[in-house]
Amino acid sequence: MSGNSIGKRFVVTSFGESHGKCVGVVVDGCPSGLQLDENRVQRDLDRRRPRSGAISTPRKEEDKVEFLSGLMNGRTTGAPITMLMWNRDADSTSYDEFRSKPRPGHADYPALIRYEGNNDYRGGGRFSGRLTAAIVMAGVVAKVYLESKLVEVFAYTLEVGGIRAKLPEIDKIREIAAKNMMCTPDTEAAEEMIRAVTAAREEGDSVGGIVECQASGIPPGVGDPIFDSIDADLAKILFDIPAVKGVEFGSGFEAARLKGSENNDSFTVTEGRITTSTNNAGGVLGGLTYGMPIVVRVAFKPTPSISKKQLTVDLKKMETTELEIKGRHDACIVPRAVPVVEASTAIVLADHMLRLAL
Amino acid sequence: MSGNSIGKRFVVTSFGESHGKCVGVVVDGCPSGLQLDENRVQRDLDRRRPRSGAISTPRKEEDKVEFLSGLMNGRTTGAPITMLMWNRDADSTSYDEFRSKPRPGHADYPALIRYEGNNDYRGGGRFSGRLTAAIVMAGVVAKVYLESKLVEVFAYTLEVGGIRAKLPEIDKIREIAAKNMMCTPDTEAAEEMIRAVTAAREEGDSVGGIVECQASGIPPGVGDPIFDSIDADLAKILFDIPAVKGVEFGSGFEAARLKGSENNDSFTVTEGRITTSTNNAGGVLGGLTYGMPIVVRVAFKPTPSISKKQLTVDLKKMETTELEIKGRHDACIVPRAVPVVEASTAIVLADHMLRLAL
Amino acid sequence: MSGNSIGKRFVVTSFGESHGKCVGVVVDGCPSGLQLDENRVQRDLDRRRPRSGAISTPRKEEDKVEFLSGLMNGRTTGAPITMLMWNRDADSTSYDEFRSKPRPGHADYPALIRYEGNNDYRGGGRFSGRLTAAIVMAGVVAKVYLESKLVEVFAYTLEVGGIRAKLPEIDKIREIAAKNMMCTPDTEAAEEMIRAVTAAREEGDSVGGIVECQASGIPPGVGDPIFDSIDADLAKILFDIPAVKGVEFGSGFEAARLKGSENNDSFTVTEGRITTSTNNAGGVLGGLTYGMPIVVRVAFKPTPSISKKQLTVDLKKMETTELEIKGRHDACIVPRAVPVVEASTAIVLADHMLRLAL
Amino acid sequence: MSGNSIGKRFVVTSFGESHGKCVGVVVDGCPSGLQLDENRVQRDLDRRRPRSGAISTPRKEEDKVEFLSGLMNGRTTGAPITMLMWNRDADSTSYDEFRSKPRPGHADYPALIRYEGNNDYRGGGRFSGRLTAAIVMAGVVAKVYLESKLVEVFAYTLEVGGIRAKLPEIDKIREIAAKNMMCTPDTEAAEEMIRAVTAAREEGDSVGGIVECQASGIPPGVGDPIFDSIDADLAKILFDIPAVKGVEFGSGFEAARLKGSENNDSFTVTEGRITTSTNNAGGVLGGLTYGMPIVVRVAFKPTPSISKKQLTVDLKKMETTELEIKGRHDACIVPRAVPVVEASTAIVLADHMLRLAL
Repeated sequence: MSGNSIGKRFVVTSFGESHGKCVGVVVDGCPSGLQLDENRVQRDLDRRRPRSGAISTPRKEEDKVEFLSGLMNGRTTGAPITMLMWNRDADSTSYDEFRSKPRPGHADYPALIRYEGNNDYRGGGRFSGRLTAAIVMAGVVAKVYLESKLVEVFAYTLEVGGIRAKLPEIDKIREIAAKNMMCTPDTEAAEEMIRAVTAAREEGDSVGGIVECQASGIPPGVGDPIFDSIDADLAKILFDIPAVKGVEFGSGFEAARLKGSENNDSFTVTEGRITTSTNNAGGVLGGLTYGMPIVVRVAFKPTPSISKKQLTVDLKKMETTELEIKGRHDACIVPRAVPVVEASTAIVLADHMLRLAL
Repeated sequence: MSGNSIGKRFVVTSFGESHGKCVGVVVDGCPSGLQLDENRVQRDLDRRRPRSGAISTPRKEEDKVEFLSGLMNGRTTGAPITMLMWNRDADSTSYDEFRSKPRPGHADYPALIRYEGNNDYRGGGRFSGRLTAAIVMAGVVAKVYLESKLVEVFAYTLEVGGIRAKLPEIDKIREIAAKNMMCTPDTEAAEEMIRAVTAAREEGDSVGGIVECQASGIPPGVGDPIFDSIDADLAKILFDIPAVKGVEFGSGFEAARLKGSENNDSFTVTEGRITTSTNNAGGVLGGLTYGMPIVVRVAFKPTPSISKKQLTVDLKKMETTELEIKGRHDACIVPRAVPVVEASTAIVLADHMLRLAL
Repeated sequence: MSGNSIGKRFVVTSFGESHGKCVGVVVDGCPSGLQLDENRVQRDLDRRRPRSGAISTPRKEEDKVEFLSGLMNGRTTGAPITMLMWNRDADSTSYDEFRSKPRPGHADYPALIRYEGNNDYRGGGRFSGRLTAAIVMAGVVAKVYLESKLVEVFAYTLEVGGIRAKLPEIDKIREIAAKNMMCTPDTEAAEEMIRAVTAAREEGDSVGGIVECQASGIPPGVGDPIFDSIDADLAKILFDIPAVKGVEFGSGFEAARLKGSENNDSFTVTEGRITTSTNNAGGVLGGLTYGMPIVVRVAFKPTPSISKKQLTVDLKKMETTELEIKGRHDACIVPRAVPVVEASTAIVLADHMLRLAL
Repeated sequence: MSGNSIGKRFVVTSFGESHGKCVGVVVDGCPSGLQLDENRVQRDLDRRRPRSGAISTPRKEEDKVEFLSGLMNGRTTGAPITMLMWNRDADSTSYDEFRSKPRPGHADYPALIRYEGNNDYRGGGRFSGRLTAAIVMAGVVAKVYLESKLVEVFAYTLEVGGIRAKLPEIDKIREIAAKNMMCTPDTEAAEEMIRAVTAAREEGDSVGGIVECQASGIPPGVGDPIFDSIDADLAKILFDIPAVKGVEFGSGFEAARLKGSENNDSFTVTEGRITTSTNNAGGVLGGLTYGMPIVVRVAFKPTPSISKKQLTVDLKKMETTELEIKGRHDACIVPRAVPVVEASTAIVLADHMLRLAL
């Protein structure tokens, strides 16, 4: 309880449940005077919506954002900005079973213990991926602020089901990734990924993947070491996204296998600005930005909801039992996670930039 | 500025500098009545000290902990616990150069910008690895509390310079890891690792590695989703350790390549308790513990201080220049990081257990 | 910006504006399993509504509470509880004038500076007394929790327009105060107060007063000295109520004129429990409760909205000008503030009791 | 536990005990580059020291401040600033008695309950007035920052033992108050106050009083409504000072007896700046500053340590008993509280100004 807010200066509070009335968010600390409207938020929310039947859940989610507070005449007022989307009637009956037969890979069991059986379990309640819509909404506010500071944040699918995209030049990444449903900047890889997802789906299985996010335009010196390092705060919000199991910056885990002379980025001068020749540090040194793009990768486990038979425990009888999850589910949530990673990154960057009043 | 505290209920505040008077820490929120003394803290501090000349810096650091507050008659009083170690005279002259010629891979450059040239740069100031001693001190307090709740936390070196340890049975890990200077639970790997470090050292280079940490005995339901998930808070504190570039739980980045049916951990009943047959989730589902051990891996980049010539920028002339870092430095800080990872993990677990008054 | 939340363990976030879509609140950290419904909240919201035309504004506010999240089957789930009341169409035209001619005693001028003219000024925006409805809603959640711990909080009007109520025995206070529109536990004083308010109203003027609040049943030892003392946190939330200019505990300002021997409360034993013979400390010693009722008094200034002519500055011309505030306004908001003081007190007590898991 | 820090941006953490090794403080969030040294802090610490034997405790406290971190070459570095004063050997024997016979008006009893008998009770431990030295130290850092922004904070004794000072012109207040041991800006009143204190002392009794604090030069718009209003945050820190029972701004409790037309401050133009003709609001409207001085009054109860016989409970026998407190104690702590009120006010103002990067 009471962990539903994040940020010190740009404070995001999540509320709502998967099958409750709504999913919403309060953003406190946004500067006044920024242009913002529902269309801007809707655009990102739409990126989070399920893909075509081929790879995704068929639940029809309209997900129309509505502002409840914090705007006047299309501008932020400096007051808390409340946004939500109303849930449509959802069928929660299948979830009754999971209260006594917790789904492997889901939070059903620990949530039951934690909330002593009182938690809203319908559709996964607070633990549903649907809750990431709140992060996306808040992320748009953060991005609007960051844009006013010439900071750009963008994410894309790097890997799905073991297929890794080849990255084009930085300028092409956004353009290409926007054109395929996998949100990946490699058209060929996109097709292979779709095949991998489809194959998993047909087996009643699922696949995971990796999202990469870049943030450019951040001035050097952003971050609050020791304990509010910029990478630490980014990692925290990214691990708050359901299904994330790993986060790395720059050369990441690979750095553990490099030598210092290979991994160090030499400083150099480019058009009168300090830059580095490589970016193995992923934009972060000592918890501070140094003017190069932040590059972070986020590993998503395969969706735990699979239709294949699995073993679990019948909590009433305290014995092992089989479980079959009915209905259709996302065989891969990675492309839908792209705007969530982007939003999460933007929220932390906005928080830290505002702390410095940059 | 003002990011030097962490925790909501067990609050750790770091102070001190590498070449200032001391390195210290205040721990606020420790329950009263726990047995604690300087010997207990010293034991862990000693684990953080430099290794023999073969792989480490020869600076003689005594690192004797002293308690300034919070104890009476060998027990915690419920008041803030302040601990520190006094710095001995250190030679800071070589650091003058780095103010105008920032070391690649270090925080020299962004710190200069952030603090407008006023930061204590001597010995790296607040950005020195020496500051991790404060975390180790606070971690002992956390571990004493956790032990009273039967929670055990232990870390070890998993990989150095590309050499990965084979893990023995869980019970042997501690025992074996305690016997070699690499702190790894694989005696043969330890020797190979030492060879790799020595080789790098002789080339004036350095190597990185991976530390793994396990925490067992944690009851199910610990963590505060959505934004204070237990994995999110662990990742945050771990990325606050200098040189960390990646964090993963359970199957981690590998999960991105598995299918749901492979990665899901089936629930089962063991001696009347709910457990899982595998632990790919690394002890965390939906941001909550579920009774299985937390397993986290932390990737350390190779020490950026190398004696090989490197390129950097002369900030006064704004032109590229060569830099040679004199003196001897750790060619691998991974084994010294083991107690730091352990302490960091313990701090977050203590914070979350205390939130629930478990 | 970003000061719209309060509490560490029971966290209340306010949103909405006087003439925006709604006034609402998110309560994060409420334990799961408590019985709660809209009727319970409505009861307290109704106590905050304007009194009959004699002393109050005629604006017809329905103020129906609606839950958006956090409940299932009439019980709290442990998730954030979101409540709001929708605003009805309000006429904001008269407020245009105050942007250039700030009302004396109101926040018009500093808010204009702070939000650079972007703040929602309609109906006073975030600075309207109407926002206290959010506190009342959150306070009901706090009171439901406190009742489960046998803690009772109740407030009443002590003084209005210089007329001070005589307090009956503690058991009668609630009963009598509930019977008159001044919410004061002295029927005669109530009539005098109404006369005073009516007289002020007829002159186009207003009066202030004092609300007293008592909280009983709190176990000894609640509070987090040094900086989260129970009285400090109560004072903080009480000063957040618009129009509050003073807060005192127990003998309060009078204590400054007493001798130590007069003001000290002797400890004594009553039915096997430690109590004190007097309660000059108002339930707080060293920032901790000691088992006696908390007694706090809150001074409200007279409503600044008066219809008498006043002087202010025309910000465009930067010259002094006359201002006449049209429409009818509360000539005394003290009785309406009673449930707000009660709610505020309950919020802090719930927060502190939950910190101790009592 | 864990309430020993205050502030969001300028964060003050208190540590130490009355008869432990030291009393200290960590200040996190101070901007880099400010001039600061031990003399500057010592000056204010000296103002907090006991007065001559006539009115105060004879304990010889040297109270020499020492910096442990955060400074280099006489300037702040942006790192946490740690300051402390070492305690000299103190005789704690008399405090053993209070563990079973709690002193009326002190925290002995609730602290015993709260910390289950483990709290450091020697000299009052964390509840001793001696701990206010930590606030004074932190306050100097705040004042140095505020001075760089042309904000001035000063406090003085307004009332002692029922004798109220007459205030001279604002410019004379500091000068006169500095010349008498009561720290009051009225020389005659000072003499009367000393007589009152001396008389109380001779009877083995004590007196209380009121400290007033003014802060000028603050720009309009400072404060974070709704819950971090500037007056709310000031009241919080002021109630954290031991013995404070009341806080009021501007006309304060008196406002409850005024009419709106009397209490409202008219805006006017003075030398091109917006000011108000009166300052009944005490510098705060709607939780925001508006450019006029903040005026706050703080009521201190009479020192609870008196040598007169008192009744208390023998906790072992659970029966009423007599208590005689041996040794000499302050018969009036009000003048010593003056720098504490000043420091507390400065800490909150620095925190809020820094939030706005003003």
